[in-house]
Amino acid sequence: MDNLRLRKERICSVPVEEFVRRIKDFHGAFAPGVMLGGYMVDLAYQHLPPGDILFDALSETRSCLPDAIQLLTPCTIGNGWLRVLDLGKFALSLYDKHRGDGVRVLIDPAKLGLFPEIKTWFFKLKPKQGQDLDVLLEEIHAAASQICGTMPVKLKPEFLTPRHRAGFRICPVCRKSYPAADGDRCRPCGGEAPYL
Amino acid sequence: MDNLRLRKERICSVPVEEFVRRIKDFHGAFAPGVMLGGYMVDLAYQHLPPGDILFDALSETRSCLPDAIQLLTPCTIGNGWLRVLDLGKFALSLYDKHRGDGVRVLIDPAKLGLFPEIKTWFFKLKPKQGQDLDVLLEEIHAAASQICGTMPVKLKPEFLTPRHRAGFRICPVCRKSYPAADGDRCRPCGGEAPYL
Repeated sequence: MDNLRLRKERICSVPVEEFVRRIKDFHGAFAPGVMLGGYMVDLAYQHLPPGDILFDALSETRSCLPDAIQLLTPCTIGNGWLRVLDLGKFALSLYDKHRGDGVRVLIDPAKLGLFPEIKTWFFKLKPKQGQDLDVLLEEIHAAASQICGTMPVKLKPEFLTPRHRAGFRICPVCRKSYPAADGDRCRPCGGEAPYL
Repeated sequence: MDNLRLRKERICSVPVEEFVRRIKDFHGAFAPGVMLGGYMVDLAYQHLPPGDILFDALSETRSCLPDAIQLLTPCTIGNGWLRVLDLGKFALSLYDKHRGDGVRVLIDPAKLGLFPEIKTWFFKLKPKQGQDLDVLLEEIHAAASQICGTMPVKLKPEFLTPRHRAGFRICPVCRKSYPAADGDRCRPCGGEAPYL
């Protein structure tokens, strides 16, 4: 880390070295996507609507970005403040949990010209073995959120509705509980089980 | 914590006190569901197929359980080893990531008779204000995985397929990248955007 040219010393007030440590601990290995995701979260924070709002987060991919969000914001999958939609976009948004207005951050391909190793990695132009991880990381730290674009967004109301489940029943098939609103049996016993 | 009657001193080799600390740090507040989820993960570990397997995790609810899994196993949303299906079941499974065989852990309502406060909380029989959090926690620590059931499972092959995206294009609408396999434009621009 010592020789890295850092555009920023901190990401969301966390020292970069500490964020790298958290990535290894939580994500299991250092991952460029989580690192870059960190810079994206940092940029999103700077564009949040003014005031002391309660915000939720949305990731448009299951890869890497959700972990950057979970490590740098109060939003996790299990507490319900992070939502993941598998839309294949390396994009995230932070938004007022009640009103839905916030900011979306994406990588802007038009800005990748100065960072060829990021471009190669982002578009998977070479197999992983052919990529240079050290150069990639140098570029990520040098670029930081410079390669991102932001846009104001407002979430559709159906994405703001809190999921309060109320009313449980015992499933007549498996004898375990399930939300009564799901019908006369639980969804796994009704054919949605991921198991054989 | 000192006065708690603990059935187990450790959860997945993590001291119970340390797990409580991790829950507060990560989840944002102490949550009975994450605590109970920890005992469920611990039980699942004990039933993993023998040998030094690489396992993935699945949570059948978005509430609480995913965070217990992320805090106690190497599986996170962002590294792809944890999958969340919103099936409304307080159940999880750990399974061999290649062969798909593993174990599913659920709360067994038939075993809740000795633990009235857990029953009240689990079935939401009273509003939150009417529940006694201290008694609930005492019961969770006293019960641990005693109130769970386990069953062997084998994941359907479609849930084992790794998602390797290859081939990206620039979306003609938003000028950002997307997986070419998604068609002639990215899914958000094609009508799946969660934004107004």
